[in-house]
Amino acid sequence: MYEMHFGVPMSGAVLNTINTRLDARTVAVLLQHSGSKLVFVDQTTLQLIRDAFRLLPSEHPAPHVIVVEDPHDAPPNAETLTLTTYERLLETGDPDFEWVRPVSEWDPIVLNYTSGTTSSPKGVVQCHRATYLIALDWLVEWTVPPRPTYLWTLSMFHGNGWCFPWGMAVVGGANVCLTRVTAATVYAAIARHGVTHLCGAPVVLNMLAHASDAARKALPPGMKKVQVLTGGAPPPAAVLQRVEKLGFEVSHGYGLTETAALVVSCSWKPEWDELPESERARLKARQGVRIPSLAEVDVVDAETRRSVPRDGVTTGEIVLRGGSVMLGYLHDEEATRAAIRDDGWFYTGDVGVMHPDGYLEIRDRSKDVIISAGENISSVEVESVLYGHPAVNEAAVVARPDELRGEAPCAFLSLKDGAAGTVTASDIIAWCRERMPRYMAPRTVVFRAELPKTSTGKIQKYVLRNIANEMGPTRRGTPTTTNGSGSSKM
Amino acid sequence: MYEMHFGVPMSGAVLNTINTRLDARTVAVLLQHSGSKLVFVDQTTLQLIRDAFRLLPSEHPAPHVIVVEDPHDAPPNAETLTLTTYERLLETGDPDFEWVRPVSEWDPIVLNYTSGTTSSPKGVVQCHRATYLIALDWLVEWTVPPRPTYLWTLSMFHGNGWCFPWGMAVVGGANVCLTRVTAATVYAAIARHGVTHLCGAPVVLNMLAHASDAARKALPPGMKKVQVLTGGAPPPAAVLQRVEKLGFEVSHGYGLTETAALVVSCSWKPEWDELPESERARLKARQGVRIPSLAEVDVVDAETRRSVPRDGVTTGEIVLRGGSVMLGYLHDEEATRAAIRDDGWFYTGDVGVMHPDGYLEIRDRSKDVIISAGENISSVEVESVLYGHPAVNEAAVVARPDELRGEAPCAFLSLKDGAAGTVTASDIIAWCRERMPRYMAPRTVVFRAELPKTSTGKIQKYVLRNIANEMGPTRRGTPTTTNGSGSSKM
Repeated sequence: MYEMHFGVPMSGAVLNTINTRLDARTVAVLLQHSGSKLVFVDQTTLQLIRDAFRLLPSEHPAPHVIVVEDPHDAPPNAETLTLTTYERLLETGDPDFEWVRPVSEWDPIVLNYTSGTTSSPKGVVQCHRATYLIALDWLVEWTVPPRPTYLWTLSMFHGNGWCFPWGMAVVGGANVCLTRVTAATVYAAIARHGVTHLCGAPVVLNMLAHASDAARKALPPGMKKVQVLTGGAPPPAAVLQRVEKLGFEVSHGYGLTETAALVVSCSWKPEWDELPESERARLKARQGVRIPSLAEVDVVDAETRRSVPRDGVTTGEIVLRGGSVMLGYLHDEEATRAAIRDDGWFYTGDVGVMHPDGYLEIRDRSKDVIISAGENISSVEVESVLYGHPAVNEAAVVARPDELRGEAPCAFLSLKDGAAGTVTASDIIAWCRERMPRYMAPRTVVFRAELPKTSTGKIQKYVLRNIANEMGPTRRGTPTTTNGSGSSKM
Repeated sequence: MYEMHFGVPMSGAVLNTINTRLDARTVAVLLQHSGSKLVFVDQTTLQLIRDAFRLLPSEHPAPHVIVVEDPHDAPPNAETLTLTTYERLLETGDPDFEWVRPVSEWDPIVLNYTSGTTSSPKGVVQCHRATYLIALDWLVEWTVPPRPTYLWTLSMFHGNGWCFPWGMAVVGGANVCLTRVTAATVYAAIARHGVTHLCGAPVVLNMLAHASDAARKALPPGMKKVQVLTGGAPPPAAVLQRVEKLGFEVSHGYGLTETAALVVSCSWKPEWDELPESERARLKARQGVRIPSLAEVDVVDAETRRSVPRDGVTTGEIVLRGGSVMLGYLHDEEATRAAIRDDGWFYTGDVGVMHPDGYLEIRDRSKDVIISAGENISSVEVESVLYGHPAVNEAAVVARPDELRGEAPCAFLSLKDGAAGTVTASDIIAWCRERMPRYMAPRTVVFRAELPKTSTGKIQKYVLRNIANEMGPTRRGTPTTTNGSGSSKM
């Protein structure tokens, strides 16, 4: 996958990385939509591609397949032997081949499908220029020194790993890749290779924070701080505090597939070092300020499109413009026009506030806002408090219909190992009421062994919303509490 | 000057910084050529501008003048009071003024005259895009952390201080400026402000290396290494060794006014740390490899325009192309076409070799090559050996006519304090012959109290070439040695 980020564009083609955790049906939809001509696939994912090919309509020719053999895998089976392998393809290559330079720097380099897209896939097209700018920007923003050792916990199929395949090449980095990302493999890789940098969604931070002592004991005692860049959701304060104590220095940013990578960075001020731990965590959970190649970030009123006051309270839609905003969605002019409007701004669909010091803070994806008795409740804010509870492993808050209020917050929780049975729904609600306005506290708490996740590790809120809807409305009076079966998997 | 780098482009104008050490005649030529409408000048340089204005032809309207008052200067005199001052201008400003964004990123942002240009000034025009790219690149290449403290020993009028005015703003740097750059003021500023980074030509390194103990004693004992970026000429190995011992970490690059800043960097490999000191200095004196925004660097045969072998020996002209090559010379299409040729490459006029590991090493400016008995002699190589001599302060080697060989190397030297009289021309020639092929060793050695310099601190080789020519040809037989009067100033 790393080599593909160079070889594919250098051959004049466009790279479309596909999430290997998708099902065959979705893969078939994406292959059709993208019109891919050639598929590189490793042995472990070959069956998925075969299944996807079978689902392609007869008029759609299946792409050519090149199998990438992993020397650590079992020897190739009879079937693979009949296919072209990556290594055999390379052997037929011309060492004097002159790489195909883009005619314009605005030519496409990658196509990235956003998640949750089986019905109408949204294919984000990015150009050479955008990925160049953002790759450089993050080297500056993160002060990446020459020859870092970078651990891939973030997948390269996830927004091209936030453009770090290219960034690591600029600084001559070593790339450490894992077949499986678990606390044990991550800690072992850090210890073995002297990892200096890694990126990951907060779910990875959470994994690092709650690793067993056995997994963690691999770390050398005098280990240098590992730089961690996180994004995709605000890191819960409690998780931040924990991983920083374990030897990780966390940077935090915000971006979307449509912006090629994170484009807002919670740039840290030295004077904040002196603040109490909880205050530092609160500041670090803010998304931050624009990075150089983003011309502007703003929060606007959805109706008037005018900037909301910079008061840290008034919510609005987060809008962006600058060097790494996508060219558009492939084969979807309507969606492109809805996203990049006639005023030249990209409308993210995310809800945020602008603080007086110019730092952006995300409040919610628009659809995740809970509107209860006329009040907007940010599910992220409620989750942040829930993560502070000592027994909580993961938390997700969605709207549940409410007889009186229209909607009310409903919390889905998984507990830490050994914490099951030690805490009740009422405890959780009481915990929240002590820490936030009463109307914001969940009226329903559901315990689960695990929360449902997308293939990229994001909690599937739409699944939880469906469950909450099926529960029916909460009634007047005392809150409803539900203890879900500990064994229910979703 | 720092504020001008932002205010001028943000008002929609183009910034042309003028070297304050130029004479009135040259300043008048530049003002005419550029068609400047407005001149910002500080009180100490006001007389220079007045003199220049008097030399403008009557049909050329003198630009409007804004005086920048320095609070440390004497109180403004009666004359200044009648002029608009910068502070008074700012008071009339509109706080709601919306800054003028360039229509295209290819719009010009700066005009920089290359040195030695009174007869036909060469005005290099750079665009927003180029300066943006190079400013970002050097933050990456030099691993500049957030909030550095940057000392201005390099003038901002010298190629816009290699674009660091903008770069420092990106990382929130503090800018420390000096009225006079001397060893004492530089060491004092480092100690007082905790300087982390500075740029300077090798002449600055030399100044730091040979500072008196009194000047150096300001440095705190546990001072963190100061990062120094040098370019403009290869740093002599002996000077490099000395300043690194004094607490400076030197990075080295190569560029021209036409490329906005340094575009080739002697990217350091950790394995080189283990080499002997002299070998490390030799490697660090090489110019290096391209930085990200430079698409390509090559050394080509002047006739065939084809790449020379990467053998570290075959010389050719250094050619460049990429993101920060100038738009062209102002009002001079012919010079522009001669520099940026129909093949899309910028021809630097500098002579270099390409090493097998892809590192560029400059051998000479084309006109500085000495051709002796059919052999090309790099004056830089000879100077490098001369700098290694313990008594030598500064060295410059030029061609002197030679009866037998056509040309022969002639060395001009200034000696370190107290070294006058301790070394003879024969000693110097013997020193060189021990360390290089005989044909390369100087046949003439001239001692001077000081070597002639341009206003930007470069040694004026053309002055020395004239002197060497006037000496007449060296004759067959033993080398000619000349001990110049220690008091002659040039």
